[in-house]
Amino acid sequence: MTTSSDRSKQHSPERRRLLLGLAAAPVAACAATGTGANLRAETTAGAPAPARPTSDTVGPGPFPTEGMAAYAPTGPLRPMQFQRRALGPRDVAIKLHYCGVCHSDIHTVRGDWGPIQYPLIVGHELAGEVVAVGSSVSKFRVGARVGVGTMVNSCRRCVECDAGHENYCLNGNTQAYGSKDRDGSTTQGGYSTFVVVDEDFVINIPDAIDLAEAGPLLCAGITVYSPLRRWGVSTGKKVAIIGLGGLGHLAVKLAKALGAEITVFTTSPEKIDDAKRFGATNVVVNRDGADFSALRHSFDFALDTVPQRHDLNRFVPLLKRDATYCRVGVGKTVDTLDVGQMNLVLLRNAIAGSNTGGIRETQEMVDFCARNNIKPDIQKIPMTGIDDAWSKVVAKKARYRYVIEING
Amino acid sequence: MTTSSDRSKQHSPERRRLLLGLAAAPVAACAATGTGANLRAETTAGAPAPARPTSDTVGPGPFPTEGMAAYAPTGPLRPMQFQRRALGPRDVAIKLHYCGVCHSDIHTVRGDWGPIQYPLIVGHELAGEVVAVGSSVSKFRVGARVGVGTMVNSCRRCVECDAGHENYCLNGNTQAYGSKDRDGSTTQGGYSTFVVVDEDFVINIPDAIDLAEAGPLLCAGITVYSPLRRWGVSTGKKVAIIGLGGLGHLAVKLAKALGAEITVFTTSPEKIDDAKRFGATNVVVNRDGADFSALRHSFDFALDTVPQRHDLNRFVPLLKRDATYCRVGVGKTVDTLDVGQMNLVLLRNAIAGSNTGGIRETQEMVDFCARNNIKPDIQKIPMTGIDDAWSKVVAKKARYRYVIEING
Repeated sequence: MTTSSDRSKQHSPERRRLLLGLAAAPVAACAATGTGANLRAETTAGAPAPARPTSDTVGPGPFPTEGMAAYAPTGPLRPMQFQRRALGPRDVAIKLHYCGVCHSDIHTVRGDWGPIQYPLIVGHELAGEVVAVGSSVSKFRVGARVGVGTMVNSCRRCVECDAGHENYCLNGNTQAYGSKDRDGSTTQGGYSTFVVVDEDFVINIPDAIDLAEAGPLLCAGITVYSPLRRWGVSTGKKVAIIGLGGLGHLAVKLAKALGAEITVFTTSPEKIDDAKRFGATNVVVNRDGADFSALRHSFDFALDTVPQRHDLNRFVPLLKRDATYCRVGVGKTVDTLDVGQMNLVLLRNAIAGSNTGGIRETQEMVDFCARNNIKPDIQKIPMTGIDDAWSKVVAKKARYRYVIEING
Repeated sequence: MTTSSDRSKQHSPERRRLLLGLAAAPVAACAATGTGANLRAETTAGAPAPARPTSDTVGPGPFPTEGMAAYAPTGPLRPMQFQRRALGPRDVAIKLHYCGVCHSDIHTVRGDWGPIQYPLIVGHELAGEVVAVGSSVSKFRVGARVGVGTMVNSCRRCVECDAGHENYCLNGNTQAYGSKDRDGSTTQGGYSTFVVVDEDFVINIPDAIDLAEAGPLLCAGITVYSPLRRWGVSTGKKVAIIGLGGLGHLAVKLAKALGAEITVFTTSPEKIDDAKRFGATNVVVNRDGADFSALRHSFDFALDTVPQRHDLNRFVPLLKRDATYCRVGVGKTVDTLDVGQMNLVLLRNAIAGSNTGGIRETQEMVDFCARNNIKPDIQKIPMTGIDDAWSKVVAKKARYRYVIEING
């Protein structure tokens, strides 16, 4: 039996580096990623569904898996059967119960972040239960409640991996979907029944967190938590959160728990009450032509969760001197920043980006959420409801995260 | 005799705030500014030149002054006679010997940073000799060698002024030219024979610095020194300097003295030897289509001194994680940043701006230059040579700063 890990050992260092380099596909804040190398990806739509593994029946794999795949940039998702790789010594096999729906999934399938290979199963907010472990696995046991986020591997040799920043792996980490895995195959994501992941990229879900609410923490949650920590959001800091969707609503809850005073900017007036319920002190409706001048020089930090290009000249002047405006949303890769340099010069401000978080930081964030009773506001949908959910996400109708119930 | 200071006392606090608010005209890194309130700006071209003050003859003023003014966005500068205000208690009267030529002077006159009021005398790199002082002046005596940079006043009440960041005054500082002064007049800059400035905005020039070489430190020098210090450039840091003009060449010298290892990016291959002489370890010619990929993830900090819009996507990927790319040049106010958000996201990088420096920091920089024998490479020109010098600045022909010799 050849596992991904075994196979990679057969390559020369140069060849491995090449493979890893190939993995450096466009990624993003809350990024296009890939879950669990699928050694023998097979599209067998129309064939009888394979037997699905359970904790009673699973062996060492490979594991028959079913997911909802995109076959083109537009058009409905359709079922796809394939196999997840057999267990390597450090692999964890996870029966998936839930997967969150992230705007990144849509960006990726639409080709906003570059061409991709179809069919592709997206989803990088996975939550489920361990049903089998490899011979060397030490961190998880069968029955453990676990999650997987945007990454399923990284080079583990670069300075960033050494520092726990696998999300910034200089050799290109392996994303949960759409990434070239070490065996050359394309990773398939969490809109599926089953996944096999190296234990170092599996997150423990504390009992205080409902499994249905765990997935959104692993992309949306860490994507906002990491910059809140990086830029020192803490007691008394005045923070602007721009955009109140899947990421934004968790940003408000997390920033509140960190002690900040929060102002939310939203284009949806009907979200005002929600914003206050999540912890915002002030809510500003971001209408075309709205005058924000009363808020000039107000904020120690701004976190922009808007997933598309928009006018930043309205917001940068609201920062205090030396404050940073961090965007975690990315529209199209080619989009330039709609901000004049003069607006950055006037108070020595910066526009930054941030891309999810490392594995250690992700576990820290999940544990922080458990301690502080922070959970996403979710709406459960069936596998057959994804297309409809995607339309609502684009139309800003999500309240605030769709989570797919997987009855594999 | 009514001085600017006296007049401002006649205004109500509200009126003064309004006047100060009016001073918040567009400013910039190495910015459009204003020198010395001219209480009674008069355009008397064609009239006999007034007697010029000397250290032997000056009284309390007003002081007849002659300068080279712009009368339109394009076209040659022409002489203008006017009077500098009479000495207020805290004013210093300075006979000017030199004034540096800054790209900001050209941007301002051309209207790149917004409409201005003509005629306007620009210049914010002034150097000269104190010839008279007001009754309460404590920092300077007649005969002192001094300079004036981009600011001649600020509100002195806001949190930024309190912290010594007059360059970020929240009520709009008074720039050396083109700014509304406290009396409502427009400040006139240093392409002139004489200036009157509040002592708090006058810089002492140590004996180790030639007066002809002092002016360029007061805009070009502080504009690059301040961000080098803000972003912790010190021994062993790898720093990219983009653009090798008036600002860039001082940035190399200053960063070298701070202990950094410097790579210069220049569009002018003929500047390679100069860049090395200034202290660069590496020089990269920034040609269209040049491949910088060997330098990916190399730099702890990048300082971009290019005074116009250009493609930043080539440079941001050269930064290490969390590193900042700071631009001190501003093209047109309306220019957006040519960088894709994805490039900021991938390694949590930031694009920042920075605008000159505070008065205390400017004096610190001048003293640092004196101790470390740092001086600009200058070419002296007569008052009648400014138009030609401007053409050469735009054509990247300056080596590296034109300084006007003022024989007032």
